[in-house]
Formats: sequence, structure tokens, C-alpha cells
Amino acid sequence: MKWALIGYGGMGRWHVEKLRTLPEFEIAGVYDILPERREAAVKDGLTAYDSLESLLADASVELVTIATPNDLHRPIAIQAMAAGKHVISEKPVTLSSRDLQAMIDASRKYGRIFSVHQNRRWDEDFLIIKQIYDQNSLGRVFNIESRVHGSRGVPGDWRNTWLQGGGMILDWGVHMLDQLLMLVDEPVVSTFCTVSHVTNDEVDDGFKAIITFGSGLTAQVEVGTSNFINLPRWYMQGENGTAVIHDWALNGEIVKVSDWEKRDAVPVVTAAGLTKTMAPRTEETIQRYPLPKVESDVRDYYRNIARAIRGEEEQLVTHAQMMRVMRLMEACFKSAEENAVVHTRI
Amino acid sequence: MKWALIGYGGMGRWHVEKLRTLPEFEIAGVYDILPERREAAVKDGLTAYDSLESLLADASVELVTIATPNDLHRPIAIQAMAAGKHVISEKPVTLSSRDLQAMIDASRKYGRIFSVHQNRRWDEDFLIIKQIYDQNSLGRVFNIESRVHGSRGVPGDWRNTWLQGGGMILDWGVHMLDQLLMLVDEPVVSTFCTVSHVTNDEVDDGFKAIITFGSGLTAQVEVGTSNFINLPRWYMQGENGTAVIHDWALNGEIVKVSDWEKRDAVPVVTAAGLTKTMAPRTEETIQRYPLPKVESDVRDYYRNIARAIRGEEEQLVTHAQMMRVMRLMEACFKSAEENAVVHTRI
Repeated sequence: MKWALIGYGGMGRWHVEKLRTLPEFEIAGVYDILPERREAAVKDGLTAYDSLESLLADASVELVTIATPNDLHRPIAIQAMAAGKHVISEKPVTLSSRDLQAMIDASRKYGRIFSVHQNRRWDEDFLIIKQIYDQNSLGRVFNIESRVHGSRGVPGDWRNTWLQGGGMILDWGVHMLDQLLMLVDEPVVSTFCTVSHVTNDEVDDGFKAIITFGSGLTAQVEVGTSNFINLPRWYMQGENGTAVIHDWALNGEIVKVSDWEKRDAVPVVTAAGLTKTMAPRTEETIQRYPLPKVESDVRDYYRNIARAIRGEEEQLVTHAQMMRVMRLMEACFKSAEENAVVHTRI
Repeated sequence: MKWALIGYGGMGRWHVEKLRTLPEFEIAGVYDILPERREAAVKDGLTAYDSLESLLADASVELVTIATPNDLHRPIAIQAMAAGKHVISEKPVTLSSRDLQAMIDASRKYGRIFSVHQNRRWDEDFLIIKQIYDQNSLGRVFNIESRVHGSRGVPGDWRNTWLQGGGMILDWGVHMLDQLLMLVDEPVVSTFCTVSHVTNDEVDDGFKAIITFGSGLTAQVEVGTSNFINLPRWYMQGENGTAVIHDWALNGEIVKVSDWEKRDAVPVVTAAGLTKTMAPRTEETIQRYPLPKVESDVRDYYRNIARAIRGEEEQLVTHAQMMRVMRLMEACFKSAEENAVVHTRI
């Protein structure tokens, strides 16, 4: 199956690297609006199309991946589907649910596969949390916290502009909200979100969202780019235990209560007082476990797309999922703008 | 100055221990409604009054501390002030701003000192964060997070009943919100709060509040009693650095950027992708500092009360401060009940 790439930036190169290892695909070529990027592609041993039109006119190309700035995903995706191509868009798939609906409509009209590159469903930290959640290891889960903290601000390219769809809700939020919705199989009933503007006034350079699901389960999803010390990547609380994953190196652990009736505590006396309520449990009343091991191959995303195009499988990242994430991001923007809880059911 | 105690439970004993070391005070005696507690007081070398009335009728007693269940603070405080006593109430001072106003009115009417035991203003973790904040060490602070996590549920006594003022907002929230208001000298403009009911349906056994101040500074204040792994006690972000205090043992550090223009990063490649935005800084672009040392003597609370009674000092915990904390707790309750942002200016 012949594949072509539109946009040869950092993520574009990543797609090429992955596709080169997949026998299902042959790389037809690359187009980028910048001549120097097209030259770089040629140096990297790729064919460079000299226009988007010439790429789309190549009848041998079945599938294209769009890795341009975010505002261009929609027009290029619709143009490519109209030209008979199946389309993968980099995330965020586009900038509003209205635009996304237009893309989904084009997919139906032209009968083409249309999906978004939600690669972080294959991240091990997420798969570990999902396994703990799915196996009910902690008892009923009532709180999930997902954080990604950096300390170098928003990247200085188009990612810091509003018109091109910059900002951290669209950049990292889109991954973390997708992961959350893949984890918790319940409707979202309300969303509260604050955004930060520490290094950038135009787009959010961080956000904190508190999301409530139908059962009352709450989630905190948070991105920061001025965090010189990181809080854990994942923190999940069940009635009988807590799991933490500190970082992408997958340091972390699970701590469970052995017997709720045993409440032996290590007394805490601080300068100002004592606390019995908050005194930590003794080691005899808890059990510590390592995190489970998981296996992951992110190329399964492309393998699924190949099978979906051949009609052998449903696509893993569905239009309905894409729309839920988009609506949840819109709820975050609306909540932050109005400083109000958004009660849209998602 | 003769002092008497009403309520000889855990905190009552703590007050006696402290007062025994202060030459400014002489302990007149103790009253508790339970005969066995009065007997325990006698065994501990104290005089036990046989009724609240006999304690209040002891003209030698100038100051009383009320360490009863929370719902009794108001009637006993007003009764004691009417009997001519200066009054310290354990926290929370009472259960609503209306009740607090009645207590403040009594203080004015009878010309008696009336204060609440906000002992945790003397906790070293708080004093360290306050020093970092006051010295502007991190640049403009835009986010403060204060968490207290336990794992043994709500105590099984009156603290798990609604009528007696149980629950974690009133128990620990009252300290943490007071600390926050002592730290940030700005009006609160909005409050969002969720509560948990993991081990108790009647009162909150945990809460998470996002508080926004006039400048846009946000704070997250959080208490949990089903947290088998703790998140840090304090986490504070300024434009140029982050401070963390992990625990009451005062483990923690400060990390500051040496030069914002230097953005050298340690590349991060996970199973599912790479990230440049979230790649951590190299050690060359940051500086690490230990937490400052602070000194604290919680007995300064009582020393101040003694001086305030003699007219030599203003009382440190003022009526206005007590009212702000109460109104902020009420905003938390209202926000959680309505699942809405409360825009009351506090």
C-alpha cells in the first residue's frame, strides 16, 4: 500500500521512520510547502513532490498522513479525500467540532478512511494505568490524575499562535483527554478548566481540567510548561489502593490496604501540632506492588489503518472518539473563558 | 493568668501540655461532659470542674479554651464570654458565617478577646513556603498547591457526623485555607470545589478546591483520606522556578531556571512517540537549592493571646481572618453542592 506524507517537520520525520519498518507500506513520497524541507526529504532518500496537487494526483498513493500546522489539517484532509485518498491527520485533528464534522462528512461522502494519529494510546504509562483500571486492582476507582509537566514554555513556532491552533490543550491535552476517555467508559457530565499564560499571552501554555463522569468518578488532567519540578505522570485512587507512575521511565508503584479495619498509624507530630487523621499507616496494614509490565508497538496504529482500508478491521480511532475528544477540549476552552463549570454531557 | 479547658479529648490534652510549659499561664482546671474524661484529668494532675457552670463561675479564670466537638464551640463560647471569660475556640471556630458573626458580636458586647486556635500557622512546612513566597524567590508566583493526604478514612467519632460539624473541609481544610489566605494577600474571586465520599456518605472525607485570586494566581487545596500514596504537601510555581515540600519531614527542594533563553533539553522518546515540548531541561540550565530553614514555636499563639488580653498586642488571629476562612469554606461547600464555580469575592 503506497503512502505519502504532507508536512516534513518533526512529526513528519517520525512517521517516515515508522513506515520504513512496516512491510505493509511503501513510501511514495513527501510534500512540504517549504523548499528546504523538500530538499531535506530528498537528502533523506525520499521522493519529494513539488506541489500538494501533484502528490494528490499520484493515483498510486492510497493513504496520506497530514503533519502540517493544526489549522491546515481540515482543508488538506478534505482535499485529499476528495482526491480519493484515505487520510490520517496528526492531532489535534482540527480546531473545532464544526470543522471536524465537515471532515467526517467528507469521509462518508468520498468513502475514504479518515482517522487521527492518537499514538499515545500506545504509551506504556497509559497502558499500565489502563491495565490496573481494567483489572479493578484498586477496587472502585474514584479519582484519576494525569499530568504532563515541562519547563521550557510553549515551542516558539506556530504552536504559540492562536490562529494556527497552538496551545497546550490542543497539543498535549488532546492526547491526555483521549487516553482518559479510552480509560473510563462513562459519559462526562461536567468540566471545569483553568488555563495559564506564564510565557505566552496568545495561547494557553498550560491548563488544569477537573472532569466529572456519570458515576461521580473525577479526573484531573493537567499540562504545564513552567514546571521545574514534575508531579507524577499518573495518580489513580481506588477505594482500596492507590497507583502512581512518576515519569516516562515508568517508575512507580501500587499501594493497597490489606485490611481496612487495621488502622495502625505512625504518629505525626509537627512543629504546630499532632495529627491522628493524617498519620500514615504502618507497613503491616498495607501491601506494596510493582507496576505491571506491558508490551506496546505503536506501529499497530498503522497496521490497523492498513487492515481498515482493506475492510478487514474497524479503525481503532473512530470518528465518534475523535468527536468526543474535540467536544471535551471545547468544554475546557469554554470553562476557562467563562470561569464556570460546563455541564455539557459528552 | 489563670486558664481553664473545656473538653478533655486529644486536642484538649495537647493544650494542657503546651500551657504547662508557659510561665504566663496557670492551669485552673478542666471540664469535660464525660465523667471518665474528668477522672482522666484528675489522674493527669489537673483539677476537674464538675460542671461547665462551675468552671465559668470560677472568677479567677480569665481565659478558657474550648476543645469540644465543633457544633458546641458557638454556644459555649458565647456563654463563656457572657460569664466574662476571654475565649479561644478550637478550629473550625463554628459551622457557618452566621454563627461566627454571633460569636464576634458577643466578643464586642462583652468586651472579651475571642480567637480561634489556628496553630498550623506555626507549621514549618507553611513557614518555609511563606518565606519563599514573601522573598519572591521564584519570580511572580502563579500557582500554589497545598495537599494533605491520609489513608485511614475519617475518624470514627463525631468527626464523621454532619450535625456535629464533621468532614475534611472543616477539619483540615480550615487550616489549609487559613494558611493560603495568610500567604496570598489578595482577594479570592472564585472558588471551585469537589468533595469525595469514599468511606463516608454523611460528610466529605476529602475535597479538592481550585481557588482563583484577584491577580489570576490560582491555588489548589486538597485533602484526602483514601490516599495510600501521598502527593507533595506543597507545590508552588513561580515564573522562574518551582518549590516542592514533599512531607512533614520537610524533604523538598527549589529548582530555578538559570537562563530562560537556554532551553537545552534531554530528549524524551517513549513507546508511542517523541516529545520536544516536554523534554526535561539539562542540569546546566537550572539551579537546585535546598529549602530554607525556619524556626517556629507554636506557643507564640498563646503568648500573643496573653499579651492581647493585657492590651499589649493585637491578637494574631483576627475576627476578619476567621470570617474570611469561614466564608471560603462556605464557598467550597456551595460549589461542591451545586457543581458550579462560586464567584463570591472573599
